[in-house]
Amino acid sequence: MQHSLAQTIVLLERTPAVLDALLRNLPESWTHSTEGGDTWNAFDIVGHLIHAEHTDWIPRITMIRQSGESQTFIPFNRLGQEENCRGKSLPQLLDEFAAVRAASLSELRSFNLRPQDLDRRGRHPAFGPVTLGQLLATWAVHDLTHLHQLSRLMAHQYREAVGPWSVYLGVLQCAGHSSAA
Amino acid sequence: MQHSLAQTIVLLERTPAVLDALLRNLPESWTHSTEGGDTWNAFDIVGHLIHAEHTDWIPRITMIRQSGESQTFIPFNRLGQEENCRGKSLPQLLDEFAAVRAASLSELRSFNLRPQDLDRRGRHPAFGPVTLGQLLATWAVHDLTHLHQLSRLMAHQYREAVGPWSVYLGVLQCAGHSSAA
Repeated sequence: MQHSLAQTIVLLERTPAVLDALLRNLPESWTHSTEGGDTWNAFDIVGHLIHAEHTDWIPRITMIRQSGESQTFIPFNRLGQEENCRGKSLPQLLDEFAAVRAASLSELRSFNLRPQDLDRRGRHPAFGPVTLGQLLATWAVHDLTHLHQLSRLMAHQYREAVGPWSVYLGVLQCAGHSSAA
Repeated sequence: MQHSLAQTIVLLERTPAVLDALLRNLPESWTHSTEGGDTWNAFDIVGHLIHAEHTDWIPRITMIRQSGESQTFIPFNRLGQEENCRGKSLPQLLDEFAAVRAASLSELRSFNLRPQDLDRRGRHPAFGPVTLGQLLATWAVHDLTHLHQLSRLMAHQYREAVGPWSVYLGVLQCAGHSSAA
């Protein structure tokens, strides 16, 4: 499948509604349980997505457009959501994510990117040169990574309850994977 | 987390809306692409979920209630959706899934299952004795398994497009896992 700005936007714009349908008004036993240790719960994941809207995607796109490879992206803080999330409820975070995502997409559209702009380069602190197109595709796959994580961490809560069926349920075989941007 | 009928129903009843938010009116490049070989696309997955409503969950619950361990479940056909899906569009399948899931939950509620009913046993063709509670938990995790699969197969379409970021995106590390019931 060919990557394109339109294919990316059509995914990005629906993630808030997907998370809303999955999480709003679920009992906290589903939304505040983790996979153990210092892994995240659903609340943490929505907070992380909000933080990425503020500090990662649009700021990096803007840096590529303005400075190209001459400036290096500010490293993304994977734990940066804590301060913004303190004292909030999950429905509040879902509302906030929907609002910041809509604002991000409005800003993205205002850039009027042409296909050839997707080849413009920026500089990632670990990878070196990356393209604007790669950054946009990563934004969409980052959403999918966290949907993947959510399905896995929710399934984990029923790991014992399914009894012998656990061998047939693929999500319970998933070892988990790092996720960042 | 303790398994309970209420915790299970609250998940089962939202899956149609989650799939709708994720898939309805997406371009076919997202919904009709697979992970290669004979793997499924989004259309196949929704068809499979419909087939399971018709032939797996409520029929097996009914068999446990009526016959206990004396009758063995009919093996589930993981490819049984083909006939029902032929000639349909994805929006039609999403509508159909919402309708059959609502009917299943209405029937489940009509059983008025008490907590002690969850210990009643049936007989699985491969596992032997299983409980009604394990079957109910499996129904919910089966939904999550296919949400996990959907996020992975959609992310796969951008595997090349994300460039060096692929190492950070957990969903692209997922090897895929069997899924059945």
